[in-house]
Amino acid sequence: MSRRVRHEGPPVRERDLQARLARRLPAGRSGLLPIGDDAAALRPGPSEVAVLTTDSLVEGIHFLRASDPRLVGAAAAAVSLSDVAAKGARPAGIVLALLLPVGTPRRWAESVVLGAERMGARFGAHVIGGDTKPGPARAVASTVIGFGRADALGPRTQARPGDLLVTTGDVGRGGLAARRLGPARRGDARALADLLRIRPRVREGAVLGPLVHAMMDTSDGLAESVRLLSAASGVRIVVEEERLPYAPGLRRAARSPSERRSLAFYGGDYELLAALPPDRWARAHRAVVRAGGRLTRIGRVERGVGAWLRSGAREEAMPPPGWDPFRGPSAPAGARGRVAV
Amino acid sequence: MSRRVRHEGPPVRERDLQARLARRLPAGRSGLLPIGDDAAALRPGPSEVAVLTTDSLVEGIHFLRASDPRLVGAAAAAVSLSDVAAKGARPAGIVLALLLPVGTPRRWAESVVLGAERMGARFGAHVIGGDTKPGPARAVASTVIGFGRADALGPRTQARPGDLLVTTGDVGRGGLAARRLGPARRGDARALADLLRIRPRVREGAVLGPLVHAMMDTSDGLAESVRLLSAASGVRIVVEEERLPYAPGLRRAARSPSERRSLAFYGGDYELLAALPPDRWARAHRAVVRAGGRLTRIGRVERGVGAWLRSGAREEAMPPPGWDPFRGPSAPAGARGRVAV
Repeated sequence: MSRRVRHEGPPVRERDLQARLARRLPAGRSGLLPIGDDAAALRPGPSEVAVLTTDSLVEGIHFLRASDPRLVGAAAAAVSLSDVAAKGARPAGIVLALLLPVGTPRRWAESVVLGAERMGARFGAHVIGGDTKPGPARAVASTVIGFGRADALGPRTQARPGDLLVTTGDVGRGGLAARRLGPARRGDARALADLLRIRPRVREGAVLGPLVHAMMDTSDGLAESVRLLSAASGVRIVVEEERLPYAPGLRRAARSPSERRSLAFYGGDYELLAALPPDRWARAHRAVVRAGGRLTRIGRVERGVGAWLRSGAREEAMPPPGWDPFRGPSAPAGARGRVAV
Repeated sequence: MSRRVRHEGPPVRERDLQARLARRLPAGRSGLLPIGDDAAALRPGPSEVAVLTTDSLVEGIHFLRASDPRLVGAAAAAVSLSDVAAKGARPAGIVLALLLPVGTPRRWAESVVLGAERMGARFGAHVIGGDTKPGPARAVASTVIGFGRADALGPRTQARPGDLLVTTGDVGRGGLAARRLGPARRGDARALADLLRIRPRVREGAVLGPLVHAMMDTSDGLAESVRLLSAASGVRIVVEEERLPYAPGLRRAARSPSERRSLAFYGGDYELLAALPPDRWARAHRAVVRAGGRLTRIGRVERGVGAWLRSGAREEAMPPPGWDPFRGPSAPAGARGRVAV
């Protein structure tokens, strides 16, 4: 028996993993179908529509072999929960597709699933199914299903001139975490962990859905999100820099105004960005605060095209962001990591 | 410019791929949300439940670099469509999570998605969303959502003593395709292609759902499926060998009765296996034939435990199957490939 096996326990086997999880996941006891059936089944509420999204985390890119697998599972669930939240829906279930190199410890796979379960359960979404396949590296694709209202989905094509631009939470957490990590600490699982601690704004999304015209999460960074929203809706969007609710420590950490912008605009933040009519602002703000969150006006939607940044009296085109994981970052080096998640 | 790039076209970029697909996928024009929004949304019918399943195909295991990407996409969709069919549900949408090594030709990724779209569209399920991430090898995780009736899901725990055991289609296609492939032709994409040609029994599943107690697909091979059904339901299941509807050419191809069994029992077939009360047999048979399919009684469910095979007057325990992709096959070498899909 190799030393690794002694330390990490037996390697994963498909049936075995399934049987163990069936006993530990609440969905296995209460669902319409048992865990391990061909598919999972969930009952929507009356006149609810199903909302579906998928996202993947890959070893060596989003997490490391040494990363805490519970945190990996929680992050995998969170990135998809954030997308469901952005459509104003209530998350209802999680399915996980795991790629596991032969010999991966069973405990690792189990912990990933239980980490996802724990993150989802906070918002009413349990792990209801999944699949494991051998693969060249560990990877976790998480699909979250939620239920929502067809008229409260906030399609990103629906921002309208005259709308206010608002964001939940604060701006720059992702950028800050990536900067603390930095290129030198890429191989350091503890430093990377901050990027995996994602808090999806599910409660905020649920109350905002019926009030907004358009909503999306800022997992691509604020600059890219504004650019995408503007392009999808065919509108001009102006972010007012002095209104931005910077994350704690961001002003201190930034060595220059330009670095502050990098941290604020290019880190994936998993906040919700929304466009809503001004006469709904007060109601939206109250609802988000009641839900335990924070909502800030950060700009406005106008006739025209493009994403713009207003600082004092100056208005300039938002610097081109364009993180594309297949091309590498055009963003400053410090602000990469979270963007890729 | 490298020769490879000239031949295969430009490498994949996330936004670019998304934009091109948004124009080519029907869901982008008719869905509740545009392709590329944070999530996709679908409307269930009145009192329908959502049925969800996920499965992955991995380069080097289920397909090769040289495999036709349309076929890879079609197979990825088909394996999940088969699971939704097994729950008597109508498939409604497909989301794909692609892992693509940096530099993968855009055309490859596009063809995978269009292959999945084409397979799904035959059954009313369009590609409604997805995600791309860089990865160490090409891989496709497909999640299919369907809508069905809570009382027609055929949980695999519900087979009852007295039920008949039935199967759609025939037995051994997967085994035959894997045998034609053989270990020597593992690297031959054309030989492997037969294993990717999967026809999910969606129409058969839809008519069987309301009539069966329990249903599942035979993607793990008939022997393993019967074993799983028997274990989940706590019943004894007897397969009557002389009733098995062998795939065309299987009898001729098998050099011995034992090889015939291997081909029939251990290849993944993507047929539906169901347990239903005898007084519904005639109705089920008529309904499947009307749906363009075939249904055969192949055994019976009894009090007791285990999966059994009856040949003539002899009854023996079904030989232990136990393909576990993480352990390697215990099945004969000729019958591996499809099992892994």
